[in-house]
Amino acid sequence: MEKKELLYEGKAKQVYATDDENIIVMHFKDDATAGNGAKHAQFAHKGELNCAITTLIYERLIKAGIPTHYIKTLNSTDQLCKKVHIFPLEVIVRNIIAGSMAKRLGIPEGTPAKNTIFEICYKDDALGDPLINDHHAVAVGAATYEELATIYDLTGKVNKELQAMFKEVGVKLVDFKVEFGRTSDGEIVLADEISPDCCRLWDAETNDKLDKDRFRRDLGDVMGAYVEILNRLKTLK
Amino acid sequence: MEKKELLYEGKAKQVYATDDENIIVMHFKDDATAGNGAKHAQFAHKGELNCAITTLIYERLIKAGIPTHYIKTLNSTDQLCKKVHIFPLEVIVRNIIAGSMAKRLGIPEGTPAKNTIFEICYKDDALGDPLINDHHAVAVGAATYEELATIYDLTGKVNKELQAMFKEVGVKLVDFKVEFGRTSDGEIVLADEISPDCCRLWDAETNDKLDKDRFRRDLGDVMGAYVEILNRLKTLK
Ligand SMILES: Nc1ncnc2c1ncn2[C@@H]1O[C@H](COP(=O)(O)OP(=O)(O)OP(=O)(O)O)[C@@H](O)[C@H]1O
Ligand SMILES: Nc1ncnc2c1ncn2[C@@H]1O[C@H](COP(=O)(O)OP(=O)(O)OP(=O)(O)O)[C@@H](O)[C@H]1O
Ligand SMILES: [Mg+2]
Ligand SMILES: [Mg+2]
Repeated sequence: MEKKELLYEGKAKQVYATDDENIIVMHFKDDATAGNGAKHAQFAHKGELNCAITTLIYERLIKAGIPTHYIKTLNSTDQLCKKVHIFPLEVIVRNIIAGSMAKRLGIPEGTPAKNTIFEICYKDDALGDPLINDHHAVAVGAATYEELATIYDLTGKVNKELQAMFKEVGVKLVDFKVEFGRTSDGEIVLADEISPDCCRLWDAETNDKLDKDRFRRDLGDVMGAYVEILNRLKTLK
Repeated sequence: MEKKELLYEGKAKQVYATDDENIIVMHFKDDATAGNGAKHAQFAHKGELNCAITTLIYERLIKAGIPTHYIKTLNSTDQLCKKVHIFPLEVIVRNIIAGSMAKRLGIPEGTPAKNTIFEICYKDDALGDPLINDHHAVAVGAATYEELATIYDLTGKVNKELQAMFKEVGVKLVDFKVEFGRTSDGEIVLADEISPDCCRLWDAETNDKLDKDRFRRDLGDVMGAYVEILNRLKTLK
């Protein structure tokens, strides 16, 4: 399968066409951004680390029966994936309250949630990816009520599997963001990366942050945390 | 029934105790505020107008079988109501997109919604009454999932009835905000006022604004609009 023209250049990844119009190559870059692009830096090996972590996670999710865009990992920074039409939604799950929700609702960061909190944001950089609800998503044409039901159902399953996976390696899954898309066959599948860029991961003993908050909040040793997550996940294999 | 001590002084109303611990007097003031209190003014007769409009609307909703806090109107500015424990939620319905949703999602004001849009905001002045979803409401203890289901069901019925009522008098019900509470008997009922302070009402022919947006946006003749709404609703009786 040949890597052809660049279809999309995002902040952290590139998407390339292939010989097959239904298949893309997702290339992981070394760039990191925060605050909707306001803060930007490059970290050597970040692309490789996120590619390796996403690979381990997707292999586990696929074993658990979750439909995904993932086909295989080609090399240290590239994955072959089914091309999907991405729903313009960031689907967030919160098991422990942190980040924007803590701020928005005046709740101390680190408070465990009694219920599993699902959130959707409308993926629109110009609008700042605003928090929305299901009715808004339908109103803007981002998804139908039925599609949202499928998306929440799959997201709940992803949460269960990720929580178990991280627990086994001494990490609390505080929250995470996923994306979904529809394949040319019409199937709704999990897409995009799952890495410390889009999860909050705290050491179960020390609560040390092992994710992109080290970059957002200038805590230092950003890649050390990503290496730690990868090394721990590797012990599961 | 005697009006006793002031229990709560809000921006637009006062709540008084009565001889009966399960009954309150709701007094409508002449004050108007906007932008979470940033803008403030007094309008002669506003209290009377909102009391009269709320009375006409509640009488119609009660006829339609909707459970409410309303008992009776005592005089030009006071209503006798069942005392409720208010759910700290502003429950919003949007039939036409305007205001914060238009801004938040970059949609031109006046766009009809394809679906009926329900929204909840967490009633907390210090946090600026942020938009939340059902999971947030449960997480902060504002309501349970079951209570929310009841609240949305009742709100949908209120919307149907209000839409019909305003249509009969040549007014488009663009959006509105309601509140719900639980009585001492444990019943979930509609509470608070329903007036041009918490509805967007546009003349069906001209799209003239006949609501608090005249104050928020300095369009002038604020009370003229409220008088117009009252006079039109009176023709229904
Ligand atoms: N299987 C797929 N098919 C097509 N597009 C995909 C697939 N998986 C992920 N994408 C999209 O590829 C892009 C990856 O780039 P990246 O994550 O760097 O973007 P970004 O800067 O985060 O911006 P945004 O996610 O807002 O588009 C994203 O737009 C993502 O939604
Ligand atoms: N039946 C009721 N029993 C008890 N409280 C009620 C009842 N109906 C309405 N309320 C409450 O009475 C208050 C009326 O005051 P007002 O609407 O002026 O308050 P406000 O300034 O809007 O502030 P807020 O609504 O945020 O408390 C509101 O807090 C409302 O929730
Ligand atoms: Mg992205
Ligand atoms: Mg009020």
